Amino acid sequence: MTGFVSFVSSGPGDPELLTLKAVKRIRDAEVILHDHLSTIPVAAHAQPGTKLVNVGKRAGHPSTRQDDINRLLVKHAKTGARVVRLKSGDAGIFGRLEEELIALTTVGIRFEIIPGVSAASAAAAAVGIPLTRRMTARRVQFFTGHDITGGFPNDVNIGALADPAATSVVYMAKATFPALTKILIAAGLSPDTPALLAEAVSTPQERSAAYTIDTLANHLIALPPEHDAPTLIIYGPLATPSISFD
Amino acid sequence: MTGFVSFVSSGPGDPELLTLKAVKRIRDAEVILHDHLSTIPVAAHAQPGTKLVNVGKRAGHPSTRQDDINRLLVKHAKTGARVVRLKSGDAGIFGRLEEELIALTTVGIRFEIIPGVSAASAAAAAVGIPLTRRMTARRVQFFTGHDITGGFPNDVNIGALADPAATSVVYMAKATFPALTKILIAAGLSPDTPALLAEAVSTPQERSAAYTIDTLANHLIALPPEHDAPTLIIYGPLATPSISFD
Repeated sequence: MTGFVSFVSSGPGDPELLTLKAVKRIRDAEVILHDHLSTIPVAAHAQPGTKLVNVGKRAGHPSTRQDDINRLLVKHAKTGARVVRLKSGDAGIFGRLEEELIALTTVGIRFEIIPGVSAASAAAAAVGIPLTRRMTARRVQFFTGHDITGGFPNDVNIGALADPAATSVVYMAKATFPALTKILIAAGLSPDTPALLAEAVSTPQERSAAYTIDTLANHLIALPPEHDAPTLIIYGPLATPSISFD
Repeated sequence: MTGFVSFVSSGPGDPELLTLKAVKRIRDAEVILHDHLSTIPVAAHAQPGTKLVNVGKRAGHPSTRQDDINRLLVKHAKTGARVVRLKSGDAGIFGRLEEELIALTTVGIRFEIIPGVSAASAAAAAVGIPLTRRMTARRVQFFTGHDITGGFPNDVNIGALADPAATSVVYMAKATFPALTKILIAAGLSPDTPALLAEAVSTPQERSAAYTIDTLANHLIALPPEHDAPTLIIYGPLATPSISFD
């Protein structure tokens, strides 16, 4: 039984939001498989001579298929090299981590997971808001705006998403948020519920803007079609910035 | 307008799970207000000569009241000192952050928030599971087992908590989980839903054990009354450890 893979969370983008443990693993790595979003943290911390394998999406290029990523991981781990699999944000949140874990354990390769800062936590911190509040936002939830089909999944728990007493963070939300908003309002959530659009979280290009769910949906509908930059939407009673945007 | 406070997430406990930015802020601080849970990261990184103020709970001692913490924060910030307010896990998740932000902004003191690794992400990573899975666990939610009254809040969205297709992480869950389990099962969630009990997450004393929601509730009922160690419960389809416990 040979081989060991460190799944390392690279955080939301800012190389300073890597954990000390993540930096150690990146520095000690002989091979790093990384996504496009974790390119900056890799560049900031990997040693010269480390083999870097970009398995992520790039605009205009098809992304590496999950099966191919799994095969690459197993191949490199079997050589006995110190392999790091970097995943942006927290590796356990919307990272397709389980599929890679299964690929490894099926062939007897061991692993560890280094947790990290989620994009949701970084987006909230950047605008000066917490994700929870005593009494009025006791629950926080993260979900994706699309699934494998690219559309808004039609078997989700709408009551959970339309809860006025929760903070909701939608990952990869831009294309599907207008459709979601219709569903939320039909389920009883007020159109005036505050909503924040956060783009390029934790990078020098970070931008945030404040809306209601209704005005944000209208804003997104009016946008020209474009490459979907990494986007988060936070809605709920706390989604009002306490730090003003410039 | 004088004064500035850095709200710094100290992560789940392991000093190596602090971010680089958090370590910088701790090292540069002249005054650090910290909770009991963030004592270890402080000890690992604060410089000699830094004024440390423990405002957290200790077994058998009443915790510092929130009003007193707010007053202390304002008092130290007004001196112009570099003040760090450390909060365990991610500062924005169940940290009563907003109350302290309001206390500062009311008197014109500026602040920043450094996001961190949540206890939920650390607990999942330690047992080798992700918090989300494509198709079958598209939503992850965090909530508390008790609120100001100490009991399970009776105005929460039960449908959200009883969703079989979500990963649910319950903070401070030990005392109220048996009552919650009854409610979840009455709402249709299978008693056989996997559940993990994680104690002292991200410390050398970390322990995890696998149950179903039903067997975990029975286990907790049978426990002798004791000081409630920091405890997380994760339940849902993913809450089955992929790393065996020893």
